[in-house]
Amino acid sequence: MSKFWSSRLQRTEPYVPGEQPNDTNVIKLNTNENPYPPSPEVQKAIQQAASEDLRLYPTPTLQELRQTIAEKFQVHQDQVFIGNGSDEVLAFSFMAFFEPGETIRFPDITYSFYPVYAKLFNTDYKVIPVNEDFSLPIESFYDAEGGVIFPNPNAPTGRALSLLEVESIVNGNPNKVVIIDEAYIDFGGQSAVQLVNRYENLLVIQTLSKSRSLAGLRVGFAIGNSQLIEGLNRIKNSFNSYTIDRLAIAGAKAAFEDEAYFEKVRKRIIDTREKTAESLSTLGFDVVESKANFLLVSHPQVDAEQLYTQLKEQNIYVRYFNKPRIQQYVRITIGKPGEMEKLIKETKHLIPNMAN
Amino acid sequence: MSKFWSSRLQRTEPYVPGEQPNDTNVIKLNTNENPYPPSPEVQKAIQQAASEDLRLYPTPTLQELRQTIAEKFQVHQDQVFIGNGSDEVLAFSFMAFFEPGETIRFPDITYSFYPVYAKLFNTDYKVIPVNEDFSLPIESFYDAEGGVIFPNPNAPTGRALSLLEVESIVNGNPNKVVIIDEAYIDFGGQSAVQLVNRYENLLVIQTLSKSRSLAGLRVGFAIGNSQLIEGLNRIKNSFNSYTIDRLAIAGAKAAFEDEAYFEKVRKRIIDTREKTAESLSTLGFDVVESKANFLLVSHPQVDAEQLYTQLKEQNIYVRYFNKPRIQQYVRITIGKPGEMEKLIKETKHLIPNMAN
Repeated sequence: MSKFWSSRLQRTEPYVPGEQPNDTNVIKLNTNENPYPPSPEVQKAIQQAASEDLRLYPTPTLQELRQTIAEKFQVHQDQVFIGNGSDEVLAFSFMAFFEPGETIRFPDITYSFYPVYAKLFNTDYKVIPVNEDFSLPIESFYDAEGGVIFPNPNAPTGRALSLLEVESIVNGNPNKVVIIDEAYIDFGGQSAVQLVNRYENLLVIQTLSKSRSLAGLRVGFAIGNSQLIEGLNRIKNSFNSYTIDRLAIAGAKAAFEDEAYFEKVRKRIIDTREKTAESLSTLGFDVVESKANFLLVSHPQVDAEQLYTQLKEQNIYVRYFNKPRIQQYVRITIGKPGEMEKLIKETKHLIPNMAN
Repeated sequence: MSKFWSSRLQRTEPYVPGEQPNDTNVIKLNTNENPYPPSPEVQKAIQQAASEDLRLYPTPTLQELRQTIAEKFQVHQDQVFIGNGSDEVLAFSFMAFFEPGETIRFPDITYSFYPVYAKLFNTDYKVIPVNEDFSLPIESFYDAEGGVIFPNPNAPTGRALSLLEVESIVNGNPNKVVIIDEAYIDFGGQSAVQLVNRYENLLVIQTLSKSRSLAGLRVGFAIGNSQLIEGLNRIKNSFNSYTIDRLAIAGAKAAFEDEAYFEKVRKRIIDTREKTAESLSTLGFDVVESKANFLLVSHPQVDAEQLYTQLKEQNIYVRYFNKPRIQQYVRITIGKPGEMEKLIKETKHLIPNMAN
């Protein structure tokens, strides 16, 4: 704390990201990164963009990349906004659509950045307790005073809503913006993008960090009604004219253009997830049904924090959240099959009566 | 306007960056980009970073790059904050140090993004008229209720304050943060970084976009007291955990490590600026004394807007600001010597009695 800090700064409670160990010799299943590299086309595109042109600003409108994304999702480019990772898009969305003094809603167990944004931007919020099985109580999100935000699939549970359930929440808030945070949608959920032309209050946010293996490139995007997108552009152009660098623009475009690679990778992860879920169930774990690239799991005989610590000692990083209702769970990112086998093997040793 | 826009969004008045023509066949002297490419080491570093590791998040603390910058400026790495271009650093600084309801001060003729931030973050401000010769009236910045921000050298005038003058403004505001925006400092000004260990209220912001030819990479940074830097980190970590991508981190580091190249480029630009200023004076232009990579110039017989338009017709882009006090000026970025010769030649044709 310093006397020079604004009241806004004083009330912040910053987000704490998962550990990023410097040691590359670990099995890293803690921050939902993709175990497979990005498409080889991405690397080529970046190498081409690493030219003398770096001396020039990028195009502030990002027109070409917006067009690529628009074509993929069959929307108009005026319905696409691109940001420096989906976290930036979320931050701009809080600024653009949530009014201080009006209470927004999000689930109690969810992406822990939402309350952080709320503190920063002075947004009042009410958390809606998820059901015992971690599903969302749909009707509790209707008629929210200030708007609604939730991830689909939810994080860190992995549970997904059907498109009909999502639509019912959007429909239940005709005068307020409903933001669907689809960071993990490509691993089995149904995207709400197909609803944007029918609901002017719907904003869908996605990222290239997970299914497109580009966490290191920082590109996220929003799709919605052109008036919502215009609003995001106004915020962005009041904040930073050029948020995406030339290399990220080139890499993101190449990633979208290699659909075959994208399909192959996401199917492989879905397949590994299902096999891992089965193995963990066999070991006696309660495995929350997941449509994401991670599993939230709990074991009746193993303390979750201890499991996290013991796995870390074996150089396997998973994520533990010391938070109400999920204190006895760990979240495990889906890695390559060999990594998951190692995880299962080590975990087995830590369960009483199972250690060999 | 849309019924879904927050009051914050409704009051924004977004910044309008200079034109970025798609046509590469123009002489582009309108957005203060560096005419020389970045160091060849930057390209190599980026190509190496464009690896499979793009699937992983960057390090959220940016420790290595902060260390590189700290060593260059002889400060501790806890005194260095890195952002996605200096515009993002400025935005975070407005949030962190300027209190809504308290009036900050900046010059009337200055970087036109400051009032944009002020609108977005609800910061009250008072503009201080610069003197007739565009120098800053130093004492008018003392005892500012909410803090002070100004560029040194100033933009779009190019006029610089001496280190003593800067210090006197910092000293004149012991209880409020004074932000020196040194985007153009490497072209002849005296940096206030050497004062940061003596003044806990001083924040100096620089960028790699100008003197290091990396406008396309989006990296800026702030140097100040560690408590100010901690404040910026809290804002950033309440906004976006990973603001700088892996490629930008690698490229920025390489740029700082090639000091010989940096020195060569900035000296070349200073040299070209002085020659251009002389040529324009000879043509009858009033040339504001500049320590930046641009010149603000006016001609008694030529309408500035017309000059801008006519040069554009000749595929030479300069910047015209339709704003009080500088309506009869154009801002010309310093390009390569050949580009400036072409500019002089075309300009000559547009001056009455000179178009031989």
